[in-house]
Amino acid sequence: MQYFPPALENLVEHFAKLPGIGLKSAQRLAFHVLSLPEEEASAFAQAILEAKKVIHCCPVCQNLTEGEGPCAICASQKRDRSTVCVVADPKDVVAMERSREYGGVYHVLHGVISPMNRVGPDDLHIRSLVERVAAGGVAEVIMATNPDTEGEATAMYLSRLLKPFQVKVTRLAYGIPVGSHLEYADDATLMRALEGRREI
Amino acid sequence: MQYFPPALENLVEHFAKLPGIGLKSAQRLAFHVLSLPEEEASAFAQAILEAKKVIHCCPVCQNLTEGEGPCAICASQKRDRSTVCVVADPKDVVAMERSREYGGVYHVLHGVISPMNRVGPDDLHIRSLVERVAAGGVAEVIMATNPDTEGEATAMYLSRLLKPFQVKVTRLAYGIPVGSHLEYADDATLMRALEGRREI
Repeated sequence: MQYFPPALENLVEHFAKLPGIGLKSAQRLAFHVLSLPEEEASAFAQAILEAKKVIHCCPVCQNLTEGEGPCAICASQKRDRSTVCVVADPKDVVAMERSREYGGVYHVLHGVISPMNRVGPDDLHIRSLVERVAAGGVAEVIMATNPDTEGEATAMYLSRLLKPFQVKVTRLAYGIPVGSHLEYADDATLMRALEGRREI
Repeated sequence: MQYFPPALENLVEHFAKLPGIGLKSAQRLAFHVLSLPEEEASAFAQAILEAKKVIHCCPVCQNLTEGEGPCAICASQKRDRSTVCVVADPKDVVAMERSREYGGVYHVLHGVISPMNRVGPDDLHIRSLVERVAAGGVAEVIMATNPDTEGEATAMYLSRLLKPFQVKVTRLAYGIPVGSHLEYADDATLMRALEGRREI
């Protein structure tokens, strides 16, 4: 049975399809959009269309970018092209950049290998990574996938794939997060932190 | 500092302005929209524009409706126009209709009187309610605002306003919600349930 006007019902359905948004939240969001000033609402709609239109993957690193050609990081003369950091997601590039520590370039896989979710190597940007390394000029590939089972497995898979190219493959260090407490660290993290201990 | 492409940043900002959506959720939603097929994303944008364009308030009851003239409920020949149920919000009309018990018409205030949020009687659709009652043909006005302080105060204010028109003003009954347990009912509800007890 139809309780809302069809146009409102339709908007609610679109919101309800978004991840983590249930029917009640979708209704609240749709009502909010209705209460927006005309120009706000159309700017929102425009932002969706615009983002879909102009954003694409960088042909070099597969990170999200706008406009023609490679992304700002790949195009920058200041970045060290001999070091490639492999991440699962564009959000991870943002996290790495926030640290202001890394001066190399990236490669975004857009996911991790996950048999449970039917994501195989061919569903990720792995071939372009291999081609990049095969083309030469890359000295080190840093695996920066998440430290969970799937991230680990993906890193292992890639390191084996890249072995023939005589490139150094490294992994981000495991350990106690800065600012946290030892007593809250889980066993696996503590074990890794102990394994990776360094002289001071 | 800019980490995402501007078009993506812009979309994230629009999502972050929605109620209950923080920055992290907004990023997740924006990435989800980017991952949608072209036609899905443009249908979403279209749904926003369409809803803003075609939905307006019914000239009689102020409920949300599409197209010309009064809403489906006000236009229906089956509804009893002598009974008007006053609710705060279009969502409350949906809740009332869901019960399939009510055969009268509605009046949607679009809010409640709330000095804390600077909402006064002039910010609500109160004048049109008074005019409706003054025009005659209304025998009973049922106050169905929420049973909280502001809903109560609004109902009291309206009942005083409507008194000169010799119309019966009633209030939805308070009591134990059906299917709930006595032990979980709060004191105020129990007191009201006791006050409103009826012979069986």
